[in-house]
Amino acid sequence: MIRGAAWLLAGAGLATSSLAADVAAGRQKAAACAVCHGPLGLATAPDAPNLAGQPALYLVAQLRAFRGGARQNEVMTLMAKPLTDADIDNLAAWFSSLVIEVKPPP
Amino acid sequence: MIRGAAWLLAGAGLATSSLAADVAAGRQKAAACAVCHGPLGLATAPDAPNLAGQPALYLVAQLRAFRGGARQNEVMTLMAKPLTDADIDNLAAWFSSLVIEVKPPP
Repeated sequence: MIRGAAWLLAGAGLATSSLAADVAAGRQKAAACAVCHGPLGLATAPDAPNLAGQPALYLVAQLRAFRGGARQNEVMTLMAKPLTDADIDNLAAWFSSLVIEVKPPP
Repeated sequence: MIRGAAWLLAGAGLATSSLAADVAAGRQKAAACAVCHGPLGLATAPDAPNLAGQPALYLVAQLRAFRGGARQNEVMTLMAKPLTDADIDNLAAWFSSLVIEVKPPP
């Protein structure tokens, strides 16, 4: 499956569920996420996930789950509470727009 | 922060919480995860997250939460149920050992 490809890519192509979303607005809003998730979505806290290149659909579902309480986390419950649906779509559009690559292991 | 660096890396360095874990055993066990999360931890299902390069600590916490019921997901609740603590540590060691890079946006 990976023959001839040095790296596998994820990211930009997966943002299709947030076509109406505003990547630039999401990037601006994401400043608040950087403390734990890094300026480009690579986690700086060891218990926080990388967000760069995550599927938009997944990010939207998780942010809504944190906001609504179905998924619980001390920090994320607080962070997600004030987000509007548009904020969530924009944040998901921003993080999913970041292209990541994984290096195949030996 | 990213001056002079074309890519930011995450992955191998973050696996320190699973130093005792068995990456090879985790890789073997991860065959069951590939349907949704891809053979190298890049999601193939639009509602599943990429796992490549995620911090081991985060992966262990989430798998335990799925197994114990604190985090709910139709598929993951079933997948996590039979996992032992060692299985979880090994899976986390495998996925966190994968090196990912994120391409800085324009």
